[in-house]
Amino acid sequence: MIDHTHDPRAQSWVDGAAGHPDFPVQNLPLGVFSHKNGDTAPRIATAIGDHVVDLAGLAADGALPAGLATALAQPTLNALFRLAEADRVALRHALFALLSSERCRLKVTPHLYPAADVVLHLPFAIGDYTDFYVGIHHATAIGKLFRPDNPLLPNYKHVPIGYHGRASSVRVSGTQVVRPWGQLKAPDADAPVHAPCRRLDHELELGLWIAGDNDLGAPVPIGTAWERIGGLCLLNDWSARDIQAWEYQPLGPFLAKNFATTVSPWVITAQALAPFRTAPQPRPAGDPQPLPYLREEGEGALAITLETTLRTAAMRAAGLPPHRLSHGNSHAAMYWTPAQIVAHHASNGCDLHAGDLLGTGTLSGPTPESAGSLMELSQGGKVPLPLPCGESRTFLEDGDELALHARAERDGFATIGFGPCVGQIMPARQPWA
Amino acid sequence: MIDHTHDPRAQSWVDGAAGHPDFPVQNLPLGVFSHKNGDTAPRIATAIGDHVVDLAGLAADGALPAGLATALAQPTLNALFRLAEADRVALRHALFALLSSERCRLKVTPHLYPAADVVLHLPFAIGDYTDFYVGIHHATAIGKLFRPDNPLLPNYKHVPIGYHGRASSVRVSGTQVVRPWGQLKAPDADAPVHAPCRRLDHELELGLWIAGDNDLGAPVPIGTAWERIGGLCLLNDWSARDIQAWEYQPLGPFLAKNFATTVSPWVITAQALAPFRTAPQPRPAGDPQPLPYLREEGEGALAITLETTLRTAAMRAAGLPPHRLSHGNSHAAMYWTPAQIVAHHASNGCDLHAGDLLGTGTLSGPTPESAGSLMELSQGGKVPLPLPCGESRTFLEDGDELALHARAERDGFATIGFGPCVGQIMPARQPWA
Repeated sequence: MIDHTHDPRAQSWVDGAAGHPDFPVQNLPLGVFSHKNGDTAPRIATAIGDHVVDLAGLAADGALPAGLATALAQPTLNALFRLAEADRVALRHALFALLSSERCRLKVTPHLYPAADVVLHLPFAIGDYTDFYVGIHHATAIGKLFRPDNPLLPNYKHVPIGYHGRASSVRVSGTQVVRPWGQLKAPDADAPVHAPCRRLDHELELGLWIAGDNDLGAPVPIGTAWERIGGLCLLNDWSARDIQAWEYQPLGPFLAKNFATTVSPWVITAQALAPFRTAPQPRPAGDPQPLPYLREEGEGALAITLETTLRTAAMRAAGLPPHRLSHGNSHAAMYWTPAQIVAHHASNGCDLHAGDLLGTGTLSGPTPESAGSLMELSQGGKVPLPLPCGESRTFLEDGDELALHARAERDGFATIGFGPCVGQIMPARQPWA
Repeated sequence: MIDHTHDPRAQSWVDGAAGHPDFPVQNLPLGVFSHKNGDTAPRIATAIGDHVVDLAGLAADGALPAGLATALAQPTLNALFRLAEADRVALRHALFALLSSERCRLKVTPHLYPAADVVLHLPFAIGDYTDFYVGIHHATAIGKLFRPDNPLLPNYKHVPIGYHGRASSVRVSGTQVVRPWGQLKAPDADAPVHAPCRRLDHELELGLWIAGDNDLGAPVPIGTAWERIGGLCLLNDWSARDIQAWEYQPLGPFLAKNFATTVSPWVITAQALAPFRTAPQPRPAGDPQPLPYLREEGEGALAITLETTLRTAAMRAAGLPPHRLSHGNSHAAMYWTPAQIVAHHASNGCDLHAGDLLGTGTLSGPTPESAGSLMELSQGGKVPLPLPCGESRTFLEDGDELALHARAERDGFATIGFGPCVGQIMPARQPWA
């Protein structure tokens, strides 16, 4: 589905939008904002350059397809993503026309606001949040640390491994992350202690926002699974490695993860990402073929450039920019595609609903510099990473600001970005003082 | 908090309520119903004997505390359980007066309906569902089957083990359960097959319904954790043992569980259960003491009688009643108390909200006849259980109707029951035909 909304020559009349690294007119992401001053009720928007456009306002003026007005007047995107894909395609086309055609300037301008004047919110009321584990290089590297003798378990190349996470503690980029307390047990200690986490980590993931609904008992065939992906975001699955190591057997991570999960605010739609779909990497010789319910034809994979940056309190004080921790690409990292993730999740009849969030799992590439967590970058905390200002890190310290970045790039197409996914670590609180 | 609403001599004027095994006037559970005919919008109710009372109707008549009218007019219990505990105490007292005092008969009668004429719904819009694993005899027995050398892991007696489950697929008692498909791998097979589950099981659990809200980053101290338990239900954590065995490492059960979870419709309130609280069983000599954030004083445990029954299609055809599979007591089964479960869940700052559901984990007692799953009762599928009609079972077969039952009993108090938690197994569908 590559059409004129992907024409790289198209430019928006909005100041600063042409050549914008994240939000040129070819992107048109969807999100929810409110004004910092004045009316603070959340409203649906798109981003264009360094501005946002109030879509509820545009719809009320009759400038958008009439059938979308009710969904666009909601405080979340859930209703809009419950509609048919054709409705979101129609919205994209209408927005593209309004923002690329100079003669629409007067119609749009009353609903255009500088991004600096608004606050962005979580785009959906999240029903369920599931986290997968499709980054095979991450699974291998972490597996080596937790199970040196058995890094990649026998099910990995047959099953898109996933588990349920906590929906209530998902927050939008910019929300501070309080260092959690937990049970920590050193390998040589007799008993655990209850103390603030000492091995606080990030995990670089993509998030899939589900569109549409399937009833309980009605699986999603692999051939239609892409239609259930409304769009993508960046997702930081903050992880307390010391809590995780002690609690995770036999039922998986729990308090090590559910104190916070951060997502980027803009939904980069499946339509905007269409040009960046590509064939999955061939499975290495000897790997099993997927079972039929997971067998996908065509361009099921996504090539998205990923980057992680860190800025410490000392760096901020010295006026230094963020430091790049890692850079890689989703294509090299993912053993299973987005459609395989969705089809597997629903293969037992599990019902997925618009606004559900599915994390891919940490997207580390095959090389050390593309690792998506400090656990990998510091080799389990054994090798500190040097930083500017003479500092170093094995895990995150209070005041650290960790940011994830993503861009879709391809020759002949305008680059589109996700906008950052940021969180700053705050000191643990003394809750039982 | 034992008051006159627990007086065993009290009786309701409603026909059949006096001596009712589940719903005498001392119970006063809360739920959501709609009429089978006529107005089918969901409304909040209590149960009394074989009747339900429409609380929205009573409130609209001014017969209940005025401050509750808005919460009682909702289609779920979430708003009511977001209020202070004192509000629900006031509601209990008002209902007790209305239903025990003959002179209130005229006031209540217009809102009284035979249970046979109504449908019961899920009582809450569930935000997040978490399942714990506090049944130590179950954990030991299952551990033996999955890890013969290592049944109870070293963290078990320090950490109330839990993991996140799927909120979207929780259904109310009576909803049919479709046998799920999944990846199954025999121990001696080279690769898994995709097929309908062959080892479908139940798990007998209690569910805790959360009341109130704590902000992200604000743990719940153990001393106030009981206030966060709005009430209890029965919970059947249907489990596909063959899917589970293959998928569960390293991140825990996923598709083996999230195809369906069934809860009983009535919320047995914390107030109704107050007389049945008791001191936890002393920890066996040599067991570690809980860390301070889990150290609880007083009557933290609950003594609730539990029972599981099975009725096959052949038994129904022969007019036979359900067959008892197991019977036990929550007190003997639970290594951690409800307050310890809540305090642990929020100990890292995880936010819990009114309407969240926390399963206890399977509540098997120390003896074979009190096992809460077929996996235990059939010793991992090796010893079939004889049934009436000459049948036997290792795991559930299509047409089987599995029911959980619970009662709170104590000398000097009226027995109160939970009402059944029932599900019937339906054949797998051929979704990819």
